[in-house]
Amino acid sequence: MKAVQIQSFGQPLEVAQCVELPDPGTPSAGQAVVALEASPINPSDVLTLSAQYGLLPKLPAVPGNEGVGRVLAVADDVKNVRAGDIVLLPAGAGTWREKLAVPAARLFPMPPDADRQQLAMLTVNPPTALLLLRDVVELQPGEWVIQNAANSGVGSYLITLARLRGLKTVNVVRRDSLIEPLKKQGADVVVVDGPDLSKQIAAATGKAAIRLAIDAIGGEATARLAHSVAPGGTVVNYGALSGEPCRVTQQDLIFRNVTLRGFWLAHWFNQATPADQMAVFGQLIKLVAEGKLHAPVEATYPLSRIKDALAHAMKAGRDGKVLLTPG
Amino acid sequence: MKAVQIQSFGQPLEVAQCVELPDPGTPSAGQAVVALEASPINPSDVLTLSAQYGLLPKLPAVPGNEGVGRVLAVADDVKNVRAGDIVLLPAGAGTWREKLAVPAARLFPMPPDADRQQLAMLTVNPPTALLLLRDVVELQPGEWVIQNAANSGVGSYLITLARLRGLKTVNVVRRDSLIEPLKKQGADVVVVDGPDLSKQIAAATGKAAIRLAIDAIGGEATARLAHSVAPGGTVVNYGALSGEPCRVTQQDLIFRNVTLRGFWLAHWFNQATPADQMAVFGQLIKLVAEGKLHAPVEATYPLSRIKDALAHAMKAGRDGKVLLTPG
Repeated sequence: MKAVQIQSFGQPLEVAQCVELPDPGTPSAGQAVVALEASPINPSDVLTLSAQYGLLPKLPAVPGNEGVGRVLAVADDVKNVRAGDIVLLPAGAGTWREKLAVPAARLFPMPPDADRQQLAMLTVNPPTALLLLRDVVELQPGEWVIQNAANSGVGSYLITLARLRGLKTVNVVRRDSLIEPLKKQGADVVVVDGPDLSKQIAAATGKAAIRLAIDAIGGEATARLAHSVAPGGTVVNYGALSGEPCRVTQQDLIFRNVTLRGFWLAHWFNQATPADQMAVFGQLIKLVAEGKLHAPVEATYPLSRIKDALAHAMKAGRDGKVLLTPG
Repeated sequence: MKAVQIQSFGQPLEVAQCVELPDPGTPSAGQAVVALEASPINPSDVLTLSAQYGLLPKLPAVPGNEGVGRVLAVADDVKNVRAGDIVLLPAGAGTWREKLAVPAARLFPMPPDADRQQLAMLTVNPPTALLLLRDVVELQPGEWVIQNAANSGVGSYLITLARLRGLKTVNVVRRDSLIEPLKKQGADVVVVDGPDLSKQIAAATGKAAIRLAIDAIGGEATARLAHSVAPGGTVVNYGALSGEPCRVTQQDLIFRNVTLRGFWLAHWFNQATPADQMAVFGQLIKLVAEGKLHAPVEATYPLSRIKDALAHAMKAGRDGKVLLTPG
């Protein structure tokens, strides 16, 4: 069967190869064999290939942290899923391959009519968006939240999830052309980033006291968010799209009592109770099945075109995710 | 009487003038007239003159946020202090003048034998050091704390106050020549800042899990502290000696869950209960009176030499505070 594999870390387009690996064969006790239907290329996957991520696999490795598949076969002792079920693959399973054997206990049948491409993107970005809104600052309905990179995967989910909670979003983007699409998607305010960001936000929100800003960019973009939250506010960073460390001025830290922290979904997976994980994913799966939670897909590629797929995923100014679809 | 005055904000050596102001005369009801004995030039004073501080006075203004004086006269209704008492001036009183009238209720007689230069420096730096150690992370005796600019006023007090609480200090400095003096003062570890700071600290502390780092510098110095604390650790910034905003990498924020926040004594003065303020200052006054809390004084100047005094206070590589002593 085909799989993407890396033998070393380095420039993603160089290290990622489509290779032939042994088929997983018949499932052993407790296992299911799943055929991948779709798996996205997330920024964290690209960072993993170049060894810039916080968790790195042992080499050689099959990349891919999430995806959706169809159960091909289960061992005799497996009762919770059966052949034909559509399932989410466990986080970090190494999904960029045609088939994989996984512990069946970690699989749950998905609603059969749910959009499979949308399910394929459910394990990483949607819980990130949900938890950024839930676990950093305790926000009340009616409050505003600011995010930059608002047209990213997480950004897109965050607009929807904020709206469902009664929160209002200020969405910071880098091009005028994104204003209308994001407003159609439910964004309350969309502003183009620049040195006067805090003034733009104050004007657009009637000088609302905004307690949370969500940063995926770093560098001066972080500093501008820190200057846009209210005194005592928090900036939470979850990405480095600028390639620069986060900056915050002492004016904001000291005199305005602003806090900067980070968010990593992997910490939540390690620390959250099973009940909380079930609650979060239960809610997200329901929203996807109902068509309420949706992120744009810009292109799909077979595994054999992994280099084209990665080049596409790494391009600035995309309008949606790039998915690998072996079928 | 002589006083330092500013008519506008700008380059400190240009805007600070020694002028003649009217003598406060006889104290009115509830007031005491105090003759200044000594007042330090703190970094926050220099930032105030150039309008870079978080609280700016109305102009024209007499700068100076702390100092010690001798009561010259009190109104008939004043009972808590009397002529001849040595008193701390209220924070933010505008102390750089020969005499000032202040509400007597804000004065407390100091131990008469306590070192007056040391008392003059008690209102700003010592509580900053004490609260940085007390209110950011709840540290247990035996734990380590890191600070940079360890030879500053706050740094020097912090070494002593940490030791009294049973905490161990890693002191980051920028010159080899500071290592021995700081060790004599009670520093447990002194290291010279550089790209390998986190490795130096790990080696010197036996890879201790350090939960708090205290930053007065900003820029890359903040990032190096953030990389030196344990996962989940906190960097608290209270200064901008580099003139650069604080930087922290996403590696430390996201993957290592490090938090960056600020500390400002003015917030504490606004929010702390009177009982807490009394407790903090009571403890600090006792330590100064006993000779246990002490910061070096490098030079004293009369008010008439304010420009020389400011130039001296703004010089890099000082080994102690610059004080104004009108007497």
